[in-house]
Amino acid sequence: MPSKEKTLNDLFVEALKDVYHAEKQILRALPKMAKSAESDQLRQAFQTHREETERQVERLEQVFELIGKPARGKPCQAMQGIIEEGKEVMEDFADSEALDAGLIDAAQAVEHYEICRYGTLKAWATQLGMRDAARLLDQTLQEEKKTDKLLSQLAESTVNQKAA
Amino acid sequence: MPSKEKTLNDLFVEALKDVYHAEKQILRALPKMAKSAESDQLRQAFQTHREETERQVERLEQVFELIGKPARGKPCQAMQGIIEEGKEVMEDFADSEALDAGLIDAAQAVEHYEICRYGTLKAWATQLGMRDAARLLDQTLQEEKKTDKLLSQLAESTVNQKAA
Repeated sequence: MPSKEKTLNDLFVEALKDVYHAEKQILRALPKMAKSAESDQLRQAFQTHREETERQVERLEQVFELIGKPARGKPCQAMQGIIEEGKEVMEDFADSEALDAGLIDAAQAVEHYEICRYGTLKAWATQLGMRDAARLLDQTLQEEKKTDKLLSQLAESTVNQKAA
Repeated sequence: MPSKEKTLNDLFVEALKDVYHAEKQILRALPKMAKSAESDQLRQAFQTHREETERQVERLEQVFELIGKPARGKPCQAMQGIIEEGKEVMEDFADSEALDAGLIDAAQAVEHYEICRYGTLKAWATQLGMRDAARLLDQTLQEEKKTDKLLSQLAESTVNQKAA
């Protein structure tokens, strides 16, 4: 299709593929982050978020079904970059007091990327009159916001202090 | 320095370099996004944000000065990925009704990355007792949040409707 004939619907499908691929990358990264974490609370938070991410992937598959398209990702370069930076922190700060603070920062970069994309996808779904899709996307959006807040609380209550 | 001797201070310096590089990339990307934008309002928003970004770079240079380090970036892979995805949208949706909606999505991914990083940097500066640095970082953080909100308003008031 020539680019100038494309519509918001095409944009929606592209963004859905992007975030589907991103979630799959996150599923692979979270166990490594949990394993690296020094504090039990942070490890637990990563493990819980992994389970949550599995349900988020399922919700995306439901959205693909609603629009009658196969659930397929396309490489999400943004998430690749974010995860690469997280890996660097895990290596450069291995066994240090500051490691957990770095892990939280990396995880919050992931969350913010998702908050942004799910926020947009929900707005587009609403504009396109896809109420069920908008509802599913909003469920995930709220979970991502909650995870981001939890990570901030963990950082501010204990982790940053321990790292300083 | 062996990784296990590193502290929150080292993490702070690394994150500062990361966001400094990210801002420089954004400075280069914004004129292209402004040029692509179909709506006058969106073009104006990108131009205004470019001027704001110049001041944000200066603030980062002030923070480097406060900690007695040369202002130097290190390649920010996350921002490279985010900007790459923005370029793809500009190509794939060139001249389409949906282009502006895609540009806003790309710009909001940039903003969310920055909101996350500046939020963390501010929290770390506060923990490290660097009050002046925390104040400068907070100024930028508030600007990024404002820009993100403005882009959401633009999308919801006119752009998404036009794209659908």
